[in-house]
Amino acid sequence: MGKTVGIIGGMGPAATCDLMEKIIALTRAGCDQEHLHLIADVDTDIPDRTAAILHGGEDPVPELRKSARRLEAAGAELLLMPCNTAHYFYDSVAEAVSVPVLHMPRLTAQALRRAGVKTAGVLATDGTVQSGVYEKALAEAGIKAVYPAADLQREVMRLIYDGVKGRAVPLESIPVPDVLADLRAQGAEKFVLACTELPIAFAQLGLMERCLDPTRVLALAAIKAAGAESAVSGPW
Amino acid sequence: MGKTVGIIGGMGPAATCDLMEKIIALTRAGCDQEHLHLIADVDTDIPDRTAAILHGGEDPVPELRKSARRLEAAGAELLLMPCNTAHYFYDSVAEAVSVPVLHMPRLTAQALRRAGVKTAGVLATDGTVQSGVYEKALAEAGIKAVYPAADLQREVMRLIYDGVKGRAVPLESIPVPDVLADLRAQGAEKFVLACTELPIAFAQLGLMERCLDPTRVLALAAIKAAGAESAVSGPW
Repeated sequence: MGKTVGIIGGMGPAATCDLMEKIIALTRAGCDQEHLHLIADVDTDIPDRTAAILHGGEDPVPELRKSARRLEAAGAELLLMPCNTAHYFYDSVAEAVSVPVLHMPRLTAQALRRAGVKTAGVLATDGTVQSGVYEKALAEAGIKAVYPAADLQREVMRLIYDGVKGRAVPLESIPVPDVLADLRAQGAEKFVLACTELPIAFAQLGLMERCLDPTRVLALAAIKAAGAESAVSGPW
Repeated sequence: MGKTVGIIGGMGPAATCDLMEKIIALTRAGCDQEHLHLIADVDTDIPDRTAAILHGGEDPVPELRKSARRLEAAGAELLLMPCNTAHYFYDSVAEAVSVPVLHMPRLTAQALRRAGVKTAGVLATDGTVQSGVYEKALAEAGIKAVYPAADLQREVMRLIYDGVKGRAVPLESIPVPDVLADLRAQGAEKFVLACTELPIAFAQLGLMERCLDPTRVLALAAIKAAGAESAVSGPW
């Protein structure tokens, strides 16, 4: 049933499951055998991406490449990387294998352009924000990126690291509505949940309105690229 | 971080994600790198297990063995098989690899024995019921298995195949409380959700009371066997 899809995962582990669930839920299938063959490598040996980009932390590229090659050797014909920040290292990963690697930020930017969005609010890790991963992808699609003010960006990081990854603080304790209000005041028509932990948090908080979920965009693109039929008709 | 855990999955795809989520949620971890390395093979080329056991359908053993070897070659040091019915073929799978394969029905029976259960109601596919996979594991632990009456067993099959796998009928339309009442009338102290699709359905239906979830038992056993620390103290 279609191409075998490999997932370079573990960034974080819950985000890998979130992508898998979205691929499964969005595939038109009436029995197990009509679903795509997925191989997910929840490789928790991959070092923290933001720490590497901003604070001289351990380079994640060697382990990202290992995971990509492991998946290719296991039979994957198409790779996905459910971590927006990891796309800073996209070229180094893609050149390690002979199978295509879908690019989540570029696919997201294309989806926004198709929807006529001119200004998008980007919620992401400091690594993604400061490295310009989304800024570049959005600019290529003619879309302006706006970001939370510094104090609110710290709250986004707390939501990602302490809320979802660390499970150390309740999601509700973080002033997410203030972050969204700040982005709207800067002209954002849509909020891009540009860290794969964020759709998990936002779904739990009931805050998906006006949000674009790049994990869902990636899931739909993977279903199409693998040759399966999607259960929905729109671009997201 | 501990041993790499391989998952022979795709039976069904949603049940594979359910096991992964339970392993992740039940591991004591404060960041990505403290989680176990998992490799999940959502191998939807594995033929239907019940069809093979009861109706002369295609033999799933060759593909189950392929998946097990694929995972071992990718680095898995311990294998899990999140499909109760597939445990009918356990010996053929386990002998194909040199790494241990955890046995979900036996682990479940041991958990029931530790809890002092004498009679357990088994909710499962026709393949699991008629092949005696659970009957044998429970008997070894000194526990009596009771099953739904024939007409109610048909409703359990509808819940698994049309409700969860096929997403063709609403879960609420299936008279699950009648199934549970029948099992209680036969003396069942606990209900074993002995098909990996059932914990998904029962959680959605809010019917987990008195239920034992073998997927959760397997997740906890895997965390222990892989050398990680569990976030809970009990056997399930």
